[in-house]
Amino acid sequence: MKRPDGQLDEEKVFKDPVHRYIHVNDELIWELIGTREFQRLRRIRQLGTTYLTFHGAEHTRFNHSLGVYEIMRRMLENLEKKMTWDTDERLVCLAAALLHDVGHGPFSHSFEKVFQTDHEEWTRWIILGETEINAVLKRMGEDFPERVADVIAKTYENKLIVSLISSQIDADRMDYLLRDAFYTGVSYGQFDMERLLRVMRPQEDQAVFKHSGMHAVEDYIMSRYQMYWQVYFHPVTRSAEVILSKILHRAKELLAAGYEFRQTPHHFHSLFASTMTLQEYIRLDESIIFYYFQEWEQEEDPILSDLCQRFMDRHLFKYVECDPSKQMLIWPELQQLFTAIGLDPAYYLVIDSSSDLPYDFYRPGEKDERMPIHLQMPDGSLRELSRESDIVEAISGKKRTDHKLYFPEDLLLDQEEYGKEKRRILSLLHQQEG
Amino acid sequence: MKRPDGQLDEEKVFKDPVHRYIHVNDELIWELIGTREFQRLRRIRQLGTTYLTFHGAEHTRFNHSLGVYEIMRRMLENLEKKMTWDTDERLVCLAAALLHDVGHGPFSHSFEKVFQTDHEEWTRWIILGETEINAVLKRMGEDFPERVADVIAKTYENKLIVSLISSQIDADRMDYLLRDAFYTGVSYGQFDMERLLRVMRPQEDQAVFKHSGMHAVEDYIMSRYQMYWQVYFHPVTRSAEVILSKILHRAKELLAAGYEFRQTPHHFHSLFASTMTLQEYIRLDESIIFYYFQEWEQEEDPILSDLCQRFMDRHLFKYVECDPSKQMLIWPELQQLFTAIGLDPAYYLVIDSSSDLPYDFYRPGEKDERMPIHLQMPDGSLRELSRESDIVEAISGKKRTDHKLYFPEDLLLDQEEYGKEKRRILSLLHQQEG
Amino acid sequence: MKRPDGQLDEEKVFKDPVHRYIHVNDELIWELIGTREFQRLRRIRQLGTTYLTFHGAEHTRFNHSLGVYEIMRRMLENLEKKMTWDTDERLVCLAAALLHDVGHGPFSHSFEKVFQTDHEEWTRWIILGETEINAVLKRMGEDFPERVADVIAKTYENKLIVSLISSQIDADRMDYLLRDAFYTGVSYGQFDMERLLRVMRPQEDQAVFKHSGMHAVEDYIMSRYQMYWQVYFHPVTRSAEVILSKILHRAKELLAAGYEFRQTPHHFHSLFASTMTLQEYIRLDESIIFYYFQEWEQEEDPILSDLCQRFMDRHLFKYVECDPSKQMLIWPELQQLFTAIGLDPAYYLVIDSSSDLPYDFYRPGEKDERMPIHLQMPDGSLRELSRESDIVEAISGKKRTDHKLYFPEDLLLDQEEYGKEKRRILSLLHQQEG
Amino acid sequence: MKRPDGQLDEEKVFKDPVHRYIHVNDELIWELIGTREFQRLRRIRQLGTTYLTFHGAEHTRFNHSLGVYEIMRRMLENLEKKMTWDTDERLVCLAAALLHDVGHGPFSHSFEKVFQTDHEEWTRWIILGETEINAVLKRMGEDFPERVADVIAKTYENKLIVSLISSQIDADRMDYLLRDAFYTGVSYGQFDMERLLRVMRPQEDQAVFKHSGMHAVEDYIMSRYQMYWQVYFHPVTRSAEVILSKILHRAKELLAAGYEFRQTPHHFHSLFASTMTLQEYIRLDESIIFYYFQEWEQEEDPILSDLCQRFMDRHLFKYVECDPSKQMLIWPELQQLFTAIGLDPAYYLVIDSSSDLPYDFYRPGEKDERMPIHLQMPDGSLRELSRESDIVEAISGKKRTDHKLYFPEDLLLDQEEYGKEKRRILSLLHQQEG
Repeated sequence: MKRPDGQLDEEKVFKDPVHRYIHVNDELIWELIGTREFQRLRRIRQLGTTYLTFHGAEHTRFNHSLGVYEIMRRMLENLEKKMTWDTDERLVCLAAALLHDVGHGPFSHSFEKVFQTDHEEWTRWIILGETEINAVLKRMGEDFPERVADVIAKTYENKLIVSLISSQIDADRMDYLLRDAFYTGVSYGQFDMERLLRVMRPQEDQAVFKHSGMHAVEDYIMSRYQMYWQVYFHPVTRSAEVILSKILHRAKELLAAGYEFRQTPHHFHSLFASTMTLQEYIRLDESIIFYYFQEWEQEEDPILSDLCQRFMDRHLFKYVECDPSKQMLIWPELQQLFTAIGLDPAYYLVIDSSSDLPYDFYRPGEKDERMPIHLQMPDGSLRELSRESDIVEAISGKKRTDHKLYFPEDLLLDQEEYGKEKRRILSLLHQQEG
Repeated sequence: MKRPDGQLDEEKVFKDPVHRYIHVNDELIWELIGTREFQRLRRIRQLGTTYLTFHGAEHTRFNHSLGVYEIMRRMLENLEKKMTWDTDERLVCLAAALLHDVGHGPFSHSFEKVFQTDHEEWTRWIILGETEINAVLKRMGEDFPERVADVIAKTYENKLIVSLISSQIDADRMDYLLRDAFYTGVSYGQFDMERLLRVMRPQEDQAVFKHSGMHAVEDYIMSRYQMYWQVYFHPVTRSAEVILSKILHRAKELLAAGYEFRQTPHHFHSLFASTMTLQEYIRLDESIIFYYFQEWEQEEDPILSDLCQRFMDRHLFKYVECDPSKQMLIWPELQQLFTAIGLDPAYYLVIDSSSDLPYDFYRPGEKDERMPIHLQMPDGSLRELSRESDIVEAISGKKRTDHKLYFPEDLLLDQEEYGKEKRRILSLLHQQEG
Repeated sequence: MKRPDGQLDEEKVFKDPVHRYIHVNDELIWELIGTREFQRLRRIRQLGTTYLTFHGAEHTRFNHSLGVYEIMRRMLENLEKKMTWDTDERLVCLAAALLHDVGHGPFSHSFEKVFQTDHEEWTRWIILGETEINAVLKRMGEDFPERVADVIAKTYENKLIVSLISSQIDADRMDYLLRDAFYTGVSYGQFDMERLLRVMRPQEDQAVFKHSGMHAVEDYIMSRYQMYWQVYFHPVTRSAEVILSKILHRAKELLAAGYEFRQTPHHFHSLFASTMTLQEYIRLDESIIFYYFQEWEQEEDPILSDLCQRFMDRHLFKYVECDPSKQMLIWPELQQLFTAIGLDPAYYLVIDSSSDLPYDFYRPGEKDERMPIHLQMPDGSLRELSRESDIVEAISGKKRTDHKLYFPEDLLLDQEEYGKEKRRILSLLHQQEG
Repeated sequence: MKRPDGQLDEEKVFKDPVHRYIHVNDELIWELIGTREFQRLRRIRQLGTTYLTFHGAEHTRFNHSLGVYEIMRRMLENLEKKMTWDTDERLVCLAAALLHDVGHGPFSHSFEKVFQTDHEEWTRWIILGETEINAVLKRMGEDFPERVADVIAKTYENKLIVSLISSQIDADRMDYLLRDAFYTGVSYGQFDMERLLRVMRPQEDQAVFKHSGMHAVEDYIMSRYQMYWQVYFHPVTRSAEVILSKILHRAKELLAAGYEFRQTPHHFHSLFASTMTLQEYIRLDESIIFYYFQEWEQEEDPILSDLCQRFMDRHLFKYVECDPSKQMLIWPELQQLFTAIGLDPAYYLVIDSSSDLPYDFYRPGEKDERMPIHLQMPDGSLRELSRESDIVEAISGKKRTDHKLYFPEDLLLDQEEYGKEKRRILSLLHQQEG
């Protein structure tokens, strides 16, 4: 660090459409942003396949990570009016906010399911391994990287700090709700962040909220609820997600079977073999994926080629609602019919349930790692939010799951061949929905 | 077309953060959006390298193209209160608005300079050649694609329609000013589009504006002015642009010299050889570029590898202002010094002038293909805008050019080797600025 | 009407900060806006005493009435894509939307309570009596005023039209939620009106909402909920309301007792005597009230003078929460103590319950004149909203009431005199709250 | 003051639609807001008669004064990163910002013209005289009120502080441009205040702006320009202003002539006699004006009665553009014709020139009390803005004046009587315009 206090000579400022400005005063933060691994987040979209539903949502994790940092900075500014801590602790906190998503790979959700990777582990490795990020962090002290990683892993001893980054109401979510609403253009997702920050009160192991700010908290919870069902679980997004997963499955299967690709997919080898190194992982971004998907459109394997074309050109699967209890009755016949008309049901008949997605609904009381939100009553005592708020109580009790059956309707409507079978399939599917 | 009137059974709607909703009622438009060539625009950023300066600006030409279409739709809705034309003319207009950018390649500005391509020609070929877009357009009539292409080429006989898409105040610019301001987060770029559309009056060869709306037009002109100098010509963006061009130059040079790449850059062969086919062009998107740049980071050629790392990790060149008249005095010495310290000045000492960039400032009177903006006075006569507006007059008279000299300051600050030469270089450069 | 089709030669447009523009094409509407009785709404605030809590909320019923008209105009534009009706019906609807609040007097809520007036009756009289509004309406036909009045009275035979203006989700509320949120500056109150209008479907006796728009409806209901408790029932606003009512009570009492005012309050005579004529009512606006309150600050009667000063200078009463069941225990003692220290408890010790206020919460199932909101399911059947939406169900079941005890804390804290009694009062009051 | 540091125990916050929140930490400020004289500003509109043109603009000077205070608070927060001053100086500055408009009366512009009053003098008297404001200020020190008054009078010795409140780019204007744009709903008036505050640099006698922020300054200047011509000088607003002035003139004339009013206008006596006391002035607000205007509608004097009806019911005068050089030719005939048809030309034929209005355009170079705006160049030197900015230069050179002739068109169109004369009048007037 060049200045003894670690401050930049002049504040650096990023223009941000959500928070207006992002302010950086600490050299540490400035240097972290400049690292190769952090810049890589510019090539990984924040919302995976959502841009295929909401064309505005093309923003990346770089964009979001700066936002989380900025919210944390403002949170600390507010909390510091009520408490003190040493500079180090503050920097651990800011760095963790900035880096919390640094381990995300391209289209993380699908990748993690297909390849059993875990972006949180990769985040840890990027912070602790041989990376530019690690080098920058180490200049703050030998154990500094470990401390930052611990915050993200929620094992850090100062639980208050952990809760600021990852709890039911944290800097991460505040940013993504506001940011994703902004970029998609939906009107949900708005809440009064400034007020939330002002009514936060530090406690030993978490931040609580002054009772007078309860309605702002309710508003935040409702925003989350609406964003999950309106945006994150949108059925068209999930259709793209389904196809993406099936592409990866197919490529893995073909590779395992010794299929000869036109161009060897060397970026995927170690991934399929689960021997991926840190450097290989860091190179994996969404451009690479798109490159391969374009290449694979021309592969001979008809399934891989078809699915890649669908993804690239947005010819997605259609869906019907599907009741898992009823579904079993028609499943064997459906699968048989699909096979009969030459469509492998493993790739063309897919159930997607929203509970497969990272469903982080508010649910105090359930056995969960997340701490409930607490209100600080006028007399200083704490009350769990849903005991004070009717609306939150209403939502927290009810886990909602949603099952959809995805299939290539275009292939079934074209009935030059197999007309009878296709009509039967369509009839079975739409019966589901009724 | 399935319905005889070409209307969709139910209006399709896109949520758009800038125009709130984008409405599609014509089957033609819906099908054009679904084509492979139009979907490809999702992989080409609207603002090239600007995301490296304004992190919010990650939106694509897909995003913008929908916006231009929507503005055109609203324009026509307004104009139709004052005039009539046949449905065909309306659809030509909407299709041209939607497709006007379809020929853009990745980072068009740099590509066009290095490879002498022209995105407007490619747009024409995509509309007229063997593409899904052409097939969809043809269903409206054998000459329909030609008509759409003519509008974009400004050779269409109905000059009013041409002017709606491409003039000093057209649907294209209205959208990009509003959209780029929205995504970058800057406060410039705002103007009252709704009012502009309401005061537009159709004339034979262009749309004019009621005199009472002059201030809205002024506001639009000022927005353009501010956006050009604040956003589009931002020196950091241009630094990235400089590096990008130099990468392409270097690759071209190496290929010509028979250099053996680790992986043959087959996407570039035909480009370098100027024999690129339509299908090859369509495959060229920004993912492909990023893929190669990542690969090339590991090439042996130190210049190619260094420049690619700079671009990917955002280690950009710094700059000094540069006065071309003074510059010649120091140029020979500078070039010599660069060579002396092992930096090829052709790649590491670059002048960028904003007039090299597509500078489409408002300048009536100059010999230019663009028609001036006219106001319709209360008595029905027309007056050219700058004769009525002091502010516009002030801007229109003065062409501003800006020259900057870009160089890798980081390599010069590290003075373990060649300390003396580097100090001399830095001194010469900063002298420029004074 | 000058043109046979009743259309204006040129559309008139109002700049509106909430809906951007308000469009008037019908001569009828334009002339109604120009009437004396409608212009009077510029002198009656939309939110009564709320400006004393949220300083931004200084907008008037004129402002709001234009907004309701504009929403109705857009509603009809949307509904007309699905149905047709004759021009007359359309104008009845627009006129009713514009005029629905025309009978409001100054600070209606307090006035209505103290003087047993009813703004809806006054609206009817203004539409049917000898007014400029009546004259304008009559030009459309002898029975036209009656039809407009019937819509507002909800007795009109076309129940669909009635429901557009007054139901659980109508043009009136949509405007006031958006507008009041805008002017107060709170972040609640936002919902996607454009989408709501797009998913409305006309039925015989009401408009229903396409099931796919359910979340927009939920969002609207949540906005209402938050606005009621955050803004409309704000305790500070109610404190001002309490004082206002007590001023009117006192003046009435004094007048009845033959008290001699410095200047005879002739505007109030007929009001107190319940013999007010239409012309007298129309002259009654908030300027008149403020004029008298300023005059009365200098009256000899100490209660009237004190209360008027409090209102004008915003020296409001403080409050404690109050549990009506416990309250009776201390009431006799409190009243006695107040009397002992020279404060008339009838004026200085006031319980206000939010259910005294026009509480128009969403509550299907309860015996109520309002129709529940219905969703149109994909198969065309209708479902009442709360059966589909968990959140709405949660809110609709629970009527919340809130009791507060208002008193002049400033007089009790100043303990030069009656220190012992005042301490006892404060202790009793704060005991309540615990 | 209760706490020795003069800080409130807990920060007070106002929700503000323009600045989101207004923060008060100083007891002094909190108490000033609570004074009778400051609360009175709630009954004086910020934009006089503008609400008759832009219905949204119903906000008051209370609203604006809080905004100016808040901007000043943020300005100081920014400046304090670059400089220090003692707490007292800071409070002088904040108090002056809050109170700068406290002497405004109802519809100040018209009042000042008719009665030769001066709101700045009244501001001074309210601060220095026997008022609650004075009492609160005095608690900070005997000379504190004087210091605050001096800042507002621009005679304070610390010229930097003076310039923050009143210069070409000060807290007052920043607030009114943003606020008036917000409430009217126009899109002009937006600029990036946050950036302006960040690039301000304190100098001995004024704040200057870092060169890199020049475009934000330009944007601010353009906003002013647009707001003046689009909003503040709007011809309809001026029509209302004309009528208002004529009402006051007529009342003054009648009173002087011994005319017997139905109710003696005692609030006006001392005003007309120029013997108004501070207490009388403070009672004068817009409610009082409206009260009298309503009363006067029923006066026997036909001119007073007609003008009052016009104002209350918004039956304004129409206008034609008017060229003062040509005007004299027709003036005698016009006056004669007006008299002939029974209209007193002193009241019904009025020229209004925009330079009569408080025209505070940017014009460095002209002899003016206002200091020009300076930019701080990279080398630390200062440059006057218009020498760097083409746009500002363009505007600053050109004073624009605009003359309009107002008259009651409605009375001329009704040609049952005096048809010939009225036709001649209309022909003369419209000739003007051509």
